[in-house]
Amino acid sequence: MAKAPVLTPQAEDFPRWYQDVINKAGLADNGPVRGTMVIRPYGYGLWERMQREMDARIKAAGADNAYFPLFIPQSYLTREAEHVEGFAPELAVVTHGGGKELEEPVVVRPTSETIVNEYFAKWVQSYRDLPLLINQWANVVRWEMRPRVFLRTSEFLWQEGHTAHATYEEARDYAARIHREVYADFMENVLAMDVVLGRKTARERFAGAVNTLTLEGMMGDGKALQMGTSHELGQNFAKAFDTRYLSKDGGRELVWQTSWGTSTRMVGGLIMMHGDDHGLRIPPRLAPVQAVVLAIKGDDAVLAKVREVGDRLAAAGVRVKVDDRTDTPFGRRAVDWELKGVPLRVEIGPRDLESGTAMLVRRIAGGKEPVAADALAELCPRILEEDQALLLRLSRERREARTADVRTVEEAAEAAAGGWARIPWADLGPEGEARLAEQGVTVRCLVGEDGSVPGSDDAPGTVAVVARAY
Amino acid sequence: MAKAPVLTPQAEDFPRWYQDVINKAGLADNGPVRGTMVIRPYGYGLWERMQREMDARIKAAGADNAYFPLFIPQSYLTREAEHVEGFAPELAVVTHGGGKELEEPVVVRPTSETIVNEYFAKWVQSYRDLPLLINQWANVVRWEMRPRVFLRTSEFLWQEGHTAHATYEEARDYAARIHREVYADFMENVLAMDVVLGRKTARERFAGAVNTLTLEGMMGDGKALQMGTSHELGQNFAKAFDTRYLSKDGGRELVWQTSWGTSTRMVGGLIMMHGDDHGLRIPPRLAPVQAVVLAIKGDDAVLAKVREVGDRLAAAGVRVKVDDRTDTPFGRRAVDWELKGVPLRVEIGPRDLESGTAMLVRRIAGGKEPVAADALAELCPRILEEDQALLLRLSRERREARTADVRTVEEAAEAAAGGWARIPWADLGPEGEARLAEQGVTVRCLVGEDGSVPGSDDAPGTVAVVARAY
Repeated sequence: MAKAPVLTPQAEDFPRWYQDVINKAGLADNGPVRGTMVIRPYGYGLWERMQREMDARIKAAGADNAYFPLFIPQSYLTREAEHVEGFAPELAVVTHGGGKELEEPVVVRPTSETIVNEYFAKWVQSYRDLPLLINQWANVVRWEMRPRVFLRTSEFLWQEGHTAHATYEEARDYAARIHREVYADFMENVLAMDVVLGRKTARERFAGAVNTLTLEGMMGDGKALQMGTSHELGQNFAKAFDTRYLSKDGGRELVWQTSWGTSTRMVGGLIMMHGDDHGLRIPPRLAPVQAVVLAIKGDDAVLAKVREVGDRLAAAGVRVKVDDRTDTPFGRRAVDWELKGVPLRVEIGPRDLESGTAMLVRRIAGGKEPVAADALAELCPRILEEDQALLLRLSRERREARTADVRTVEEAAEAAAGGWARIPWADLGPEGEARLAEQGVTVRCLVGEDGSVPGSDDAPGTVAVVARAY
Repeated sequence: MAKAPVLTPQAEDFPRWYQDVINKAGLADNGPVRGTMVIRPYGYGLWERMQREMDARIKAAGADNAYFPLFIPQSYLTREAEHVEGFAPELAVVTHGGGKELEEPVVVRPTSETIVNEYFAKWVQSYRDLPLLINQWANVVRWEMRPRVFLRTSEFLWQEGHTAHATYEEARDYAARIHREVYADFMENVLAMDVVLGRKTARERFAGAVNTLTLEGMMGDGKALQMGTSHELGQNFAKAFDTRYLSKDGGRELVWQTSWGTSTRMVGGLIMMHGDDHGLRIPPRLAPVQAVVLAIKGDDAVLAKVREVGDRLAAAGVRVKVDDRTDTPFGRRAVDWELKGVPLRVEIGPRDLESGTAMLVRRIAGGKEPVAADALAELCPRILEEDQALLLRLSRERREARTADVRTVEEAAEAAAGGWARIPWADLGPEGEARLAEQGVTVRCLVGEDGSVPGSDDAPGTVAVVARAY
């Protein structure tokens, strides 16, 4: 079929392609208040699937969900000096409630370390109460000057974990466990996204953390996106809120803490990492709809067949949708499912009934071929797993192909025009980092030569991964 | 074992009992900003299970989840006259964002009809786009002068459904479907709560609705709690936001709408409907933990046994927790699980190992008896279902026993001192309703003589259910 070019090609204008996909695939709209967004059902369906997969991993790591209030007394924010400095410029402030001016204005949470610590200080009495492992799914607000849907919005949805431990080592290990067993596992095995695991430089650390672990993904245009972070907070908030526990030998000790978060920003990452000029490509393990069965025409026999195939795929464990809206032209529906990135399309028309076939269209690997309708239930789950692996491989190959090893600031800046650079941290250092920052290029993370996460900034052999970033 | 009286007895002071349960069972704390709450893991676990069960029913009714912004331009609220009048006194207003005073203040959503309609007006083009069935899980803010945890909080968590239909009849039927197939089904079959289904009088209707359907439960002290509502909005918001569709014959018609909501208030209802002087009683189908297996002492053999029993119960589909914290006295742990209302306790000590038994303690039916450890996996699922049914029956029997049929305003007010009254609406009417309201007694809902939901206030045989309410 002849298609109108529904999307701006990526090569022509990547940001516009991104916005086109969001509009045309029905993912989100801009909200009426600057920087906010309306997440439409298809976009929210992606987020719901992310939540479900993440939540299972968070619980497996021992954390329980809870809920802390949206409103935080302004005074809480000021107790941790670096924290307030980091967040003050982004706060939304409520000054009136119930028709009256409030005695103390309250801020809409930009993150919850402060209010969480106020309660941890009450809940933690003795070493028996540790570790205390809490997660919450919530909305947060950070006023954005240059908003972009899913990537930087004034309000976004996220999970934020907050934990308290008896020792430095336990806290450090737990932050690392979330980083790898929850975040990296989810991103690689569900989102099919290649991510680089590393630690942030002092310049890029979370406001109030002593160490920030990050996961960085390369988008289709070669820029980087921070997909999630896990922080060691040391005793910074514990000191500010006097969060102490009675140790086995009777002392009143400060706890050691972590916090960690991922957000609806991951939806933006998914779009920009896997999308192409025809729209989204959703990894099968994430996809709310893994296969759509389309009736090409509205004869009763065709409609009966698509429903039968739909039932059989569902029975085989495939998340399937039957598209029998034959009052809408077939071509338009096919383009719409392509845009939405549904991994498999099964198209059935009158001629297929005679031959006992269906047209199987693969969104990820590409290509279409007629297959025996009876074979679909066995075939589709296998193809979905193949295409899941393929997406991850493609994203890894792109990152490898577009990453250059360099030795100077100039070379790093040049490489960051269309990809990433790797440069020994000993060659770059905070000074080189500052020079790059002037050109809009940042150190995304520090990694070990072997790809491990270094235990400190000055560990021997540490390499800086450098890029432009969203 | 001798127990200290951990809770104020219900008969002595029901509100204090309620607050004691919330504290001692670790359900929630008051937040730092007046009227807000911190939902602790055990309380949030109840809400998560509610969400999961409700969400499945909402999706089965055809609605998709989406997310609308927290912040609504103040001007939106004013477009529907009754709506703004109802909500204006409860609004929280953000006047500053990103360090500057905002040009137009924004309100924190008290409910989302207005912002939803702004987008429905864009998304609905033709009759093909209808019905549009949306739900969202979110936090909302209504400034509360007399807050009480879970029941009336300035911020609460809820789901709010919003739908648009081509005809009045479709909208009416969908509001009724949510009322019965989603809300009543969930409350009766999961929460084991007896609820009376009816319609609100004009006085008690949602601000902006033409009809409000409600579910009312009788709490342990005989007062009523509104557990959820489903509204027919008519074309009120459609007119205010010009939400129109192109009909089959080419006209530009206003849509007909519904909205419907249930909230964390249901947690308060659960406490007050099923709780007793020993704490919570959680209905088995809801319970995050249906059975806890307690090691009485910490010998290796006992610990091995409780883990083995735990595994077998889990394999039998029971949501089970093993309590092997034998550094805490057994009595204290037993009281804690009783307080938390876990339906079944399986207690195992050294003597049980010899006899191959375990002590089975039933929180709902009461009583404890030794049973063969090998029989537990078969026994527990059956008992859980029995006790689920028992809780529902007990709540129904209480409501029936404490509801009086009366004919005058005076009799109704008297009956409402310790229970509910039923009075023919023809005998009460809006005037009698106003007189009752002066005494703090309200018409909870109108029902048909046969328990059906009347199609209008003046349907013949309509009965008013009258009570004091939370």
